Amino acid sequence: MAFNTYTLSLRFRASFLSLNNSSPISPSLLPNTRLKFSQRPPPLRQFIRPSSSSSSSSVSASSFTWDDVFKIAHSKNDSSDLHGFFDKITTCNRGSDKQHEFIPFIINDQIVGYVHEGFAAHLKKFHDVFVFHQNNCHSHHAGNHVTLHPMLVTAEERTTAVADVVKRLGAELIPGTRNELYPVTSSFGTSVFFSLERAAAPYFGIKAYGVHMNGYVERAGKKYLWIGKRSERKQTYPGMLDHLVAGGLPHGIACGDNIVKECEEEAGIPSSISMEAIPVGAVSYMDIDGYRYKRDVLFCYDLKLPEGFIPENQDGEVESFKLIPVADVANVIKKTEYFKPNCNLVIMDFLFRHGFIRPEQFGYLKLLQSLRSGDCS
Amino acid sequence: MAFNTYTLSLRFRASFLSLNNSSPISPSLLPNTRLKFSQRPPPLRQFIRPSSSSSSSSVSASSFTWDDVFKIAHSKNDSSDLHGFFDKITTCNRGSDKQHEFIPFIINDQIVGYVHEGFAAHLKKFHDVFVFHQNNCHSHHAGNHVTLHPMLVTAEERTTAVADVVKRLGAELIPGTRNELYPVTSSFGTSVFFSLERAAAPYFGIKAYGVHMNGYVERAGKKYLWIGKRSERKQTYPGMLDHLVAGGLPHGIACGDNIVKECEEEAGIPSSISMEAIPVGAVSYMDIDGYRYKRDVLFCYDLKLPEGFIPENQDGEVESFKLIPVADVANVIKKTEYFKPNCNLVIMDFLFRHGFIRPEQFGYLKLLQSLRSGDCS
Repeated sequence: MAFNTYTLSLRFRASFLSLNNSSPISPSLLPNTRLKFSQRPPPLRQFIRPSSSSSSSSVSASSFTWDDVFKIAHSKNDSSDLHGFFDKITTCNRGSDKQHEFIPFIINDQIVGYVHEGFAAHLKKFHDVFVFHQNNCHSHHAGNHVTLHPMLVTAEERTTAVADVVKRLGAELIPGTRNELYPVTSSFGTSVFFSLERAAAPYFGIKAYGVHMNGYVERAGKKYLWIGKRSERKQTYPGMLDHLVAGGLPHGIACGDNIVKECEEEAGIPSSISMEAIPVGAVSYMDIDGYRYKRDVLFCYDLKLPEGFIPENQDGEVESFKLIPVADVANVIKKTEYFKPNCNLVIMDFLFRHGFIRPEQFGYLKLLQSLRSGDCS
Repeated sequence: MAFNTYTLSLRFRASFLSLNNSSPISPSLLPNTRLKFSQRPPPLRQFIRPSSSSSSSSVSASSFTWDDVFKIAHSKNDSSDLHGFFDKITTCNRGSDKQHEFIPFIINDQIVGYVHEGFAAHLKKFHDVFVFHQNNCHSHHAGNHVTLHPMLVTAEERTTAVADVVKRLGAELIPGTRNELYPVTSSFGTSVFFSLERAAAPYFGIKAYGVHMNGYVERAGKKYLWIGKRSERKQTYPGMLDHLVAGGLPHGIACGDNIVKECEEEAGIPSSISMEAIPVGAVSYMDIDGYRYKRDVLFCYDLKLPEGFIPENQDGEVESFKLIPVADVANVIKKTEYFKPNCNLVIMDFLFRHGFIRPEQFGYLKLLQSLRSGDCS
């Protein structure tokens, strides 16, 4: 059943890609397509598993132990087959066929988010905070958008007014409040228009940024990753596998400072070591699920740890850590859904940069590109 | 003068980006734009140098010595300013506003290249090799395309027939024949429809692949790059700076094997060392210059060399090599046009992966993305 869902969402993804980027095109279709663009990656279609295949489907998460992880880590692996990696891209990038159900959220002429029609219906009650604009034109929704009331001028006024709306909408509509504020911007590093409760971010489709760190060790030329298993008591993704260190990027803290802070809290890594963490790039994804539109960008870090270092969780969010050969971690990613979904992308980025995925494997460039399937800005 | 050209081409690039990806959009424009896509990076516009600025313009190439390189390498550097890097992206991605002058080159329903209208006029003489299709529709060129004559069925027949055309067109139209064949495909690793002389590749707008390697050394925790200076006798980019090792990827050789071969030829690196080169990703660009449409993808490799290793060029194509601190190399890239243009991208990719460009620098994500401005497939 889980497998059927995968196949389906892969198909949606593929049709979305072919809409945006075109692809190998039949000459009979030419008059209706814009042919002059050079950005024509091949469609993901060629990487979709045949729906009859069963042997290659992922092992689903639910509940598992470290023993389950190690059994799969050491199982037979066809290193040339990248399908298992493509599946993980798909898991993080659902619902692109549902984009037409959202209207842009605009502040100062810039798109800062997207709001679902159904969620918008709830916001319409708050006339003094949200203003809806309807434009008449041929297409169904083009031109419709939501913005903040012009009386809300300063970031503080906006933050307070929207926080009040989120509170009044209640936990039934927006569950899991964290009391952590995310900046609302059109892209990273540009003006912050206001701040929004982290749990509400996907309901407003705002960009959310995080820092994720792969902690690794090198022994006799072989690389090992420190992998965490999340506490069963965690609100999100309990019991699943995770990086050594990861966290959202709240308003007002720089990426590098946040990594040092999270290193201490999540793995007991002193700043004398975590200062050596290297920023190595970013991954992105866009995921639509009901009213939620996630547009996440994760800044990736590598930290090479001393061989003897043993991480110790300080905040109770991690059950335990294990040091696992990188090739085995790759096998677990390909064959299971044990990792928290977005961690798969950050580890795949590590696999690319450290040569564990190679140009000789069919689909190399497509997979590399799809690590930034979302708006990476 | 050179600086004016830069500013101009940056503007073209920016307007192309805003056409394709949209960007911060004025609500007054909404009815005519497709708003539902999430892939909306900010325009490059914000990174364009003001045309009145003179202090920050690049030092042009022409002729320079290692002394010139070192003087600039050690000069004052505002590390937060990424403009010099964006300039190098622009240099490799010219003429996107000229895409309408090209028609697709299609084989077996797949786009394998693009041919300029002017170049197409020359090809039309060869009825037995090239067939032109015209479709009537509203847009000027949509639907027009060129394909190979249906009598040319096998890859060999196509290769021979097109080679004959290239030969008959002569060196005046297609200069610099290398007697090296590139595979013609729609994307990397898929069916090869035929092979084409390397020098002719941009005239047919086919995808061209290369392997580029950054050779580096680590001394007391500090990283140094081995940089080559091309021979003044080289046909292309004489006297300019280059990687330790780089080369085109001809038909029939795998990336990894090609790197080992090029390591030996270009820098005298024995296979016992070059086998350790790590594939770390890819960069891409698309560059239109007259009839030429380059759609290049470069597979990037890192090789950590022993401290004592001294590269020695074997094929006469490199004048000399120098070992330079990575931060100094970054300064040279930002402030000069001394490097062969596409090498800048591969070194910038290295700077990202090794933490020499950081999320705290404004424009980080935009620059990261623009390293794959071309069709990276």
